[in-house]
Amino acid sequence: MPSVFSFQRRIEFCETDAAGIAHFSSLIIYMEQAEHALLRSVGLSVAASHSSDADSDGSLAYSWPRVKVECDFCSPGRFEDVISIETTVGVLGKKSITYQHHLSIGSTTIATGKMTSVCCVREGGSLNSTPIPQSIRELLHPFCGTL
Amino acid sequence: MPSVFSFQRRIEFCETDAAGIAHFSSLIIYMEQAEHALLRSVGLSVAASHSSDADSDGSLAYSWPRVKVECDFCSPGRFEDVISIETTVGVLGKKSITYQHHLSIGSTTIATGKMTSVCCVREGGSLNSTPIPQSIRELLHPFCGTL
Amino acid sequence: MPSVFSFQRRIEFCETDAAGIAHFSSLIIYMEQAEHALLRSVGLSVAASHSSDADSDGSLAYSWPRVKVECDFCSPGRFEDVISIETTVGVLGKKSITYQHHLSIGSTTIATGKMTSVCCVREGGSLNSTPIPQSIRELLHPFCGTL
Amino acid sequence: MPSVFSFQRRIEFCETDAAGIAHFSSLIIYMEQAEHALLRSVGLSVAASHSSDADSDGSLAYSWPRVKVECDFCSPGRFEDVISIETTVGVLGKKSITYQHHLSIGSTTIATGKMTSVCCVREGGSLNSTPIPQSIRELLHPFCGTL
Repeated sequence: MPSVFSFQRRIEFCETDAAGIAHFSSLIIYMEQAEHALLRSVGLSVAASHSSDADSDGSLAYSWPRVKVECDFCSPGRFEDVISIETTVGVLGKKSITYQHHLSIGSTTIATGKMTSVCCVREGGSLNSTPIPQSIRELLHPFCGTL
Repeated sequence: MPSVFSFQRRIEFCETDAAGIAHFSSLIIYMEQAEHALLRSVGLSVAASHSSDADSDGSLAYSWPRVKVECDFCSPGRFEDVISIETTVGVLGKKSITYQHHLSIGSTTIATGKMTSVCCVREGGSLNSTPIPQSIRELLHPFCGTL
Repeated sequence: MPSVFSFQRRIEFCETDAAGIAHFSSLIIYMEQAEHALLRSVGLSVAASHSSDADSDGSLAYSWPRVKVECDFCSPGRFEDVISIETTVGVLGKKSITYQHHLSIGSTTIATGKMTSVCCVREGGSLNSTPIPQSIRELLHPFCGTL
Repeated sequence: MPSVFSFQRRIEFCETDAAGIAHFSSLIIYMEQAEHALLRSVGLSVAASHSSDADSDGSLAYSWPRVKVECDFCSPGRFEDVISIETTVGVLGKKSITYQHHLSIGSTTIATGKMTSVCCVREGGSLNSTPIPQSIRELLHPFCGTL
């Protein structure tokens, strides 16, 4: 059984649209914010701007460009609703991570999503994919599993 | 052969992120903007706020909640790059439309995506799915096909 | 001495720009979010969509269009920084409220701002300004004062 | 009489809010987009990421952090409205530029704004203000004046 990472966000006014509900892009962005919060919870960050500070095996030397997003939207969220995001690492591949997200308001599912990022290192001016280092694999291992 | 709808957007500064590239959510939003521009090009709109003006078969009486988004990101876009979005109606279902999008900068593919919306009418306080009316099917017909 | 309302927000990745810092519009949006949080803290909401539920003196019957924004930006914020927003009601006019905001990271001022909204009621299709009702004045009174 | 720079933007669905109108932050962002378009029109860019390509007097070596924003909002804009933004350089200071913006839909003023940026060069890790170089002053000169 994976450890599920839980994160909460209140829907802000600027995230709603003229249909009176949270714009779908806001829900996708919450998924990204949950990923970043999960990484922070184990001492990692996707902050590319800090990469020059990292040593060769440090997590900060890696960049994680997103290569795939899949979301299903089930029910609307409204201004000031509190959305709960539950996140696991659905697939921990050799070079990529696929996060799984479940968004709900109370007992109502709002959206589900899968988002895949690839582990890269910056060499010269370009990003090259690389195996996820063992130190990162171990930090993410408790979250591995499907929702 | 479908008629491909073409739309262009310059990447704005506020759409970039600290990795120096267009945030992936901006690319997804461009896809939505291309959908709306395609609809405008045939005299339709998704503007729910105007729905009270519409007659029983008018396009404005319908609302199109998004139920599915799938995107693949291939290459980064940067501030001031001009992105070309090519859009077709990949699937014109009985009650739903799946748009297909191809985003490029020059000859480089930046992202591809599929987004599905369901035809709904507002009855009382709730949205109920309904068959896409024939008048709308005919307007979209020229764009039907895969990229 | 006014009661200062305190609110915190972590800078999210999608709120940064290619200069590596929080885009200035994100800081302005935090100010709005602080206003809404202040209103929630006393049982009010700006949610126009709920207005039909409100009675004649209920706060929900009022809409608060923004008429003025003034901000000074002093120092940059970066991804994952936690910003503290301190808010007071700088001016509680007959028909308008001017909020004052101070944004900081630790002991560093990031930005200051003033934002003015006007109390309106929706009559027919239009918004008309109206005196702020006494019940709302009393709820906001503890926050009145300058930072 | 200054040369007024004109720029147009259609209000996109994701830029509206649950009040059914363009969120005020979208109008502020249009002002920034108009600034960038004005700069592009004379061959300049604020793109900090390209600064390493520039020579000592090249415009690209400069960064323009925003230090002040003042906006008044007069009338709402709605989804699919086309907004015209007229921009001049209200003040061309020794080290700063204050742009003036007028937003309208047809003959209706939507908003006005003033935004000030400071000319900086990046030295080591920090940004230091510097006089605006003569080459940039000359390019901006035709736009100097008030709306």
